Amino acid sequence: MSTLFLRTLREDPADAEVPSHKLLVRAGLVRRVAPGVFTWLPLGYLVYRNVERIVREEMDAAGFQEVHFPALLPREPYEATGRWTEYGETLMRLQDRKGADYLLGPTHEEMFTLLVKGEYSSYKDLPLVIYQIQTKYRDEARPRAGILRGREFVMKDSYSFDIDDEGLQRSYDRHRDAYIKTFDRLGLDYVIVSAMSGAMGGSASEEFLAPCESGEDTFVRSDGGYAANVEAVVTVPPAEVPIEGLPAAHVEDTPDTPTIESLVDLANARFPRADRPWTAADTLKNVVLRLEHPDGTTSALVVGLPGDREVDMKRLEAQVSPAVPSPFEEADFAAYPQLVKGYIGPQVLGEDRGIPYLVDPRVVSGTAWITGANEQGKHVFDLVCGRDFTPDGTIEAAEVRDGDPAPDGSGALHSARGIEIGHIFQLGRKYAEALDLTVLDENGKSRVVTMGSYGIGVSRAVAAIAEQHHDDKGLIWPREVAPADVHIVATGKDAAVFEKAEELAIALEDEGLRVLYDDRKVSPGVKFNDSELLGVPTIVVVGKRLVDGMIEIKDRASGDREEVELTAAIPAILAACGR
Amino acid sequence: MSTLFLRTLREDPADAEVPSHKLLVRAGLVRRVAPGVFTWLPLGYLVYRNVERIVREEMDAAGFQEVHFPALLPREPYEATGRWTEYGETLMRLQDRKGADYLLGPTHEEMFTLLVKGEYSSYKDLPLVIYQIQTKYRDEARPRAGILRGREFVMKDSYSFDIDDEGLQRSYDRHRDAYIKTFDRLGLDYVIVSAMSGAMGGSASEEFLAPCESGEDTFVRSDGGYAANVEAVVTVPPAEVPIEGLPAAHVEDTPDTPTIESLVDLANARFPRADRPWTAADTLKNVVLRLEHPDGTTSALVVGLPGDREVDMKRLEAQVSPAVPSPFEEADFAAYPQLVKGYIGPQVLGEDRGIPYLVDPRVVSGTAWITGANEQGKHVFDLVCGRDFTPDGTIEAAEVRDGDPAPDGSGALHSARGIEIGHIFQLGRKYAEALDLTVLDENGKSRVVTMGSYGIGVSRAVAAIAEQHHDDKGLIWPREVAPADVHIVATGKDAAVFEKAEELAIALEDEGLRVLYDDRKVSPGVKFNDSELLGVPTIVVVGKRLVDGMIEIKDRASGDREEVELTAAIPAILAACGR
Repeated sequence: MSTLFLRTLREDPADAEVPSHKLLVRAGLVRRVAPGVFTWLPLGYLVYRNVERIVREEMDAAGFQEVHFPALLPREPYEATGRWTEYGETLMRLQDRKGADYLLGPTHEEMFTLLVKGEYSSYKDLPLVIYQIQTKYRDEARPRAGILRGREFVMKDSYSFDIDDEGLQRSYDRHRDAYIKTFDRLGLDYVIVSAMSGAMGGSASEEFLAPCESGEDTFVRSDGGYAANVEAVVTVPPAEVPIEGLPAAHVEDTPDTPTIESLVDLANARFPRADRPWTAADTLKNVVLRLEHPDGTTSALVVGLPGDREVDMKRLEAQVSPAVPSPFEEADFAAYPQLVKGYIGPQVLGEDRGIPYLVDPRVVSGTAWITGANEQGKHVFDLVCGRDFTPDGTIEAAEVRDGDPAPDGSGALHSARGIEIGHIFQLGRKYAEALDLTVLDENGKSRVVTMGSYGIGVSRAVAAIAEQHHDDKGLIWPREVAPADVHIVATGKDAAVFEKAEELAIALEDEGLRVLYDDRKVSPGVKFNDSELLGVPTIVVVGKRLVDGMIEIKDRASGDREEVELTAAIPAILAACGR
Repeated sequence: MSTLFLRTLREDPADAEVPSHKLLVRAGLVRRVAPGVFTWLPLGYLVYRNVERIVREEMDAAGFQEVHFPALLPREPYEATGRWTEYGETLMRLQDRKGADYLLGPTHEEMFTLLVKGEYSSYKDLPLVIYQIQTKYRDEARPRAGILRGREFVMKDSYSFDIDDEGLQRSYDRHRDAYIKTFDRLGLDYVIVSAMSGAMGGSASEEFLAPCESGEDTFVRSDGGYAANVEAVVTVPPAEVPIEGLPAAHVEDTPDTPTIESLVDLANARFPRADRPWTAADTLKNVVLRLEHPDGTTSALVVGLPGDREVDMKRLEAQVSPAVPSPFEEADFAAYPQLVKGYIGPQVLGEDRGIPYLVDPRVVSGTAWITGANEQGKHVFDLVCGRDFTPDGTIEAAEVRDGDPAPDGSGALHSARGIEIGHIFQLGRKYAEALDLTVLDENGKSRVVTMGSYGIGVSRAVAAIAEQHHDDKGLIWPREVAPADVHIVATGKDAAVFEKAEELAIALEDEGLRVLYDDRKVSPGVKFNDSELLGVPTIVVVGKRLVDGMIEIKDRASGDREEVELTAAIPAILAACGR
């Protein structure tokens, strides 16, 4: 450590919010170069390379074949699939000296599809899985959390090519198994959740999420075993109600009711119902949104949902992608005089009236609502879906709440946060069709190949491990990803201590252990603090007890300490390292 | 091989000119994505990773520490050193969604300097060598020769940081030694040549060149052991001549002498000299050039050199860098009426006359010349340097010719071509000064750090190895970089052959060999051709001789074949693999 390029920091960096970011910087493992762009320092790069090695070993063990694409890619293939435009500002674009358009690959579906198209032509060539571990670029609007969400990052991305859906399912299952092995070896705690496909377009999809408070993804699970990305949760709709016999709709004066709460209070005071009080869930809130489409045009969308729920923008985004939703502004309202802010009702909405109207799945036929009467200070009561209004369809845009039922009947949902560390995804034929990847089947007929895409955030996994493996003193690396097996701390000023410590370091390296040896001339306090901050799993102290022939072995995770005779040190340390 | 993602080609690709490009494509190791941008396929990536591993092992063995920078870099540090502009169109630039300027790193001097500045502050921290193996970008005007000169490529770049010049020399020597070990292991034949620093600015510098006909770099060597990049060759000047007593200059009519040859003919016919005939070497040719400076401005430069030599544009470029020279155009001449095309003489040249004038080192004081008289159809004879004209200085811009003397007196030079595979370079204080990298010395005084930079073309090395190791049938990989140790070819249709071949493959893998097994249902001819094209060093044929219990072991490089009993196959193959 006296020559190691390492400077640990006592203080958290000012721009760091999440534990992994703070600790990776404080432990001298990474340094920031620009927003979302980081440099790995020696110990950090050792950890990174361990993670990369484990990912590669598990991919190879699964029989997948490694290739390596450039990051600098021509525009044309991404133009063919529409993603040159769809990716919007997230795609990093540049021109070469001749003015030709290039991009920095955010993901490589197009390139893999074209590569296979160039080499293969027969069903006999399939199935095929090829993968790469490669640097990717996404110009995130808000790069945050250090290397958890960077703009330059390393992904393992694989792609499967099959002749039919059964083959795709097998390739998908092989990846699922390989991912389980990979994340187990990485020491990550994770859940596998059903996921939306988002902008990718396709069918079956699951995410591997590492539960942790600083995760960007919210997911829900039930005690009965259901788990899903919030974007993927399907609402359990209530039963439809027969329309016959329901009271007729009636408009009422409802002055000074700008909020749902004030409306419910007024309803209970002036129009009380016999069976129970009105609640926010009896109101139908109509939220107007602005959609910006990839081609730059905008349109309006109204989402109707029970007044006791808010629109979840991430769920909404997943539904309307590639369009990007944002709140309706005053200027937007000016263009739609029929929308009376605060009093919008379904009667003026719908595609045939120029404003698409989608409702929460709870708004089923026969449900009666208090909602806006499209007139200042007036609401309509007993407005019945399917009788008084017909939405253009439903949309999964309402927030999911703890206690909501799981769609599979496995109990109540509760939410948690996680980091997306892996994603497996049945792409289907979208890319193969767009880029004309076909093979001849056994009858000599041309068939479009079906594909899957599968990602692991390799650099992100380092941060995810740090999020799950630390305490208030520092990092606690799982052994296989740790920068070393043993951290030898020599304390004091006695030359004999440093001599013995160095002999021990050499002997342990000869045994095949990876050793970090702190030979610096600094105080024991500094050394102990650094050893806890760096998080090597086994710490060996060679210090003042050496006069009695004793050294100390400490387990970083449990804090357990054990004194052993120097003469028995090597087998004891090997045992502590699980050897 | 029946499931390997590999398709070999019979024909050379149309766009390939050099052997490595042809063979790497034909053997299915790489595929082109865009000009100068390639994808590695499975066997190619194995070779690439072997090269990368060897480079890393030798860097680590030398005690250098690995870090990893991003490729996406902010503009500011490159602005501070002037390289944002100096790199010109070779630098790939882009903007992020907020309009901030970024570049794709062509080399990382600035970033390493800033990193060390951020962590270190004392002479006690030095010396330090840190390196990375990382993807670089250069927008070459003419990307060519496949991965020999790409626009996206992988380099190992290291940087040394020392307190003084002696330290820098030691760091430089450590790199030189490490490079020798690295290139020896890679199986590359190479020469170490003195090199110009070019745009980098600095002092001592050597290149490792792999001699080969398709190399882009011309270098020269003498039988006595001198070797230098052509740009670095220093001319041996003749002795100065006493001016006293030399004949006076005289202008003569020389009609119809547009070329040096016609001028010499006319001189010999009309003004013969007594001692010997005039030759082109008696004429002083003045070549006018246009320099384009990094800030976009242009200026004129005249280079005077003996008429028997041409200007070598690469030597000239190295001298005037970062300015870029080009021939003077008609329009340029219009701006300088004093320059009479074909009859330019030194009398109108010189900085004080607005046209900088530099001469070849052979133009020493007292040499007398036939040169232009700055008048149509007239030349001046006996124009003596140091008496009749005084150039602004000398420039090493004349071509180096076979037979020229080596500057160290080691004999005549002869030229060869090579691929630059490594470069070691004493940068000195240029970057440290520009970016203010200082440390406190033992007296507490601030000292600017001195740096070295050291590169190895990692992806290029794969192509260089292919250039040096192939024959007309295909590649011949040195064992340590080969995609496999043994290529087992099973021929025929006999199931027993395939059974034995597979058993043998498994047994050899158990022995630690890397095995490529050709189990395809194709003709023996196709298999033999592919085995020679792919270039695995040891080829084992399991075929029709198996009925007699025999297999064949073939050495790809020598072509030597040996029949061995199947029962003795494993030790024989291990021996063939040098085990």
